Amino acid sequence: MKCRVCKGPAVIDVRRHNAAFCRDHFVHHCDEQVRRAIHSHKMLEPGERVLVAVSGGKDSLALWEILVRLGYEADGLYLGLGIGDYSDVSGRHTRAFAEQLGRRLLEVDLAADYGYGIPEAAEATRRSPCGSCGLSKRHLFNSAAIEHGYDVVATGHNLDDEAAVLLGNVLRWDTGYLGRQHPVLPAAPGFVRKVKPLVRLGERETAAYCVLRGIDYQVEECPMAAGNRHLGYKEVLNALEDRSPGSKAAFLFGFIERGHERFAGDAEIERDDLGECTVCGAPTPGDVCAFCRLRVQVGALEAPPGDSVPVRLEVR
Amino acid sequence: MKCRVCKGPAVIDVRRHNAAFCRDHFVHHCDEQVRRAIHSHKMLEPGERVLVAVSGGKDSLALWEILVRLGYEADGLYLGLGIGDYSDVSGRHTRAFAEQLGRRLLEVDLAADYGYGIPEAAEATRRSPCGSCGLSKRHLFNSAAIEHGYDVVATGHNLDDEAAVLLGNVLRWDTGYLGRQHPVLPAAPGFVRKVKPLVRLGERETAAYCVLRGIDYQVEECPMAAGNRHLGYKEVLNALEDRSPGSKAAFLFGFIERGHERFAGDAEIERDDLGECTVCGAPTPGDVCAFCRLRVQVGALEAPPGDSVPVRLEVR
Repeated sequence: MKCRVCKGPAVIDVRRHNAAFCRDHFVHHCDEQVRRAIHSHKMLEPGERVLVAVSGGKDSLALWEILVRLGYEADGLYLGLGIGDYSDVSGRHTRAFAEQLGRRLLEVDLAADYGYGIPEAAEATRRSPCGSCGLSKRHLFNSAAIEHGYDVVATGHNLDDEAAVLLGNVLRWDTGYLGRQHPVLPAAPGFVRKVKPLVRLGERETAAYCVLRGIDYQVEECPMAAGNRHLGYKEVLNALEDRSPGSKAAFLFGFIERGHERFAGDAEIERDDLGECTVCGAPTPGDVCAFCRLRVQVGALEAPPGDSVPVRLEVR
Repeated sequence: MKCRVCKGPAVIDVRRHNAAFCRDHFVHHCDEQVRRAIHSHKMLEPGERVLVAVSGGKDSLALWEILVRLGYEADGLYLGLGIGDYSDVSGRHTRAFAEQLGRRLLEVDLAADYGYGIPEAAEATRRSPCGSCGLSKRHLFNSAAIEHGYDVVATGHNLDDEAAVLLGNVLRWDTGYLGRQHPVLPAAPGFVRKVKPLVRLGERETAAYCVLRGIDYQVEECPMAAGNRHLGYKEVLNALEDRSPGSKAAFLFGFIERGHERFAGDAEIERDDLGECTVCGAPTPGDVCAFCRLRVQVGALEAPPGDSVPVRLEVR
């Protein structure tokens, strides 16, 4: 197995590209895939301040380093989820990496700052913890970016993540979610832009990137996510990819090129209706946003007068 | 396990409907699902002449019997594919059943009438036999219906078939195929209407229907289809259905209700371009239709002057 670029000994093959790479050219390959994603979807402009949502896992740490190397002004935001040892280890990896990278790391702690952790939210809502977790992340990434003057939030969703989410959305033909599923969600009143610069890299590639770059990351999967639907969708897509390499990328990019715009209107309809949350001011279709309602339900916030609607969890 | 309707002992459960049925009420369930499919998609009008594409398998024999019992004037069309023993057995089952049902059976034999069988076509095209087979069927079902004055062709595609085809079309975001994938394809110049009245029944249900009704069908899968993509897609969907009963139906009917119309324009664009095949008169985007080009390629027809384009196989 020889490097596609220099013909030296390769350390990794990427079947989807029918290519293998040595260490240095694999790192270059990852940079190029991120650069192409950013340019082709107009994710970032030079000089913009980028807030990277960093979990301590392979994807977000790889993303942060690549963005900094590509010259973007990228800082990190770590959200403490209160998931026991898993969160402790994740936080340590993140802080150590931020120091190594020499970039600023913002921290928000769900328990200390908002009065609950994901296990408590899952118990109170009696729903999948991934629902409360996603809701909390979307709310807090956005509000932290606004508060600290960032133009855009970048998340580490990779090709496998996005393809699995797409499969779930397509299996239910959830047209609102299909309309919002895109590598770039433009800014809107109360929302900064959200971008996913890793959509052209699979999770095997981001893991290899970290190993080859000596980045120490949280290797455990989140213990609360075990058995969730998206892991099942990933298995399904991996089985299809094994039989026919490239099918996962064809699925995701085919949607982006030929599917997404047909559903975009469904997402906009929802977004046009938004007012301001009476508690925190965040955009919401009701009086109180889903995040504040989750806090009420978990007992971390007093119910605002007249509000009794239970939280609506959106698992994306 | 008790029958949902009469509370007597049940012989089959249908997890997707969270129901079980005795023999008689299961047959009634099948009838009702076909009736609902026909009515909700306006497949058939009373008094129309229906040509059922009959293969001798469980789906097409069940469909034929149910249509006749529901009062439709439904005759059969059997297409001899020239696949050795498999075709011989299929033909015998079909003829015996036609006699039992007391309805007319038209027969077309690929080898005798058109100079080739599916194995020869697969060899000549060096492509999946399913491609040549689907192409031949679509062409000959349509031309036989026109020749014999039928208003509509009914095929035995069931929920599993349609969901698997949909998954394949979605994985590639093949917008033309997505636009054509519907339980009803309306008539157009040179095309009779095509309908799929079994879309609300899974293959486990059509098999049980035949067993419970004493219908003797070809139980072997087609030997030439072994390992084809759609069987892989069926496995994937069965795994998802096992975890979450009803997901297959939600996928297919969600598409029909909320997805299909967004792609319908892509199919119409292709259809507007059609002229007449210079050999057989069938609608075609080129000078010579795909069926006649297949016959040329397999050596069963002399190449028409000036035509040298190889056959384009469409695997649906």
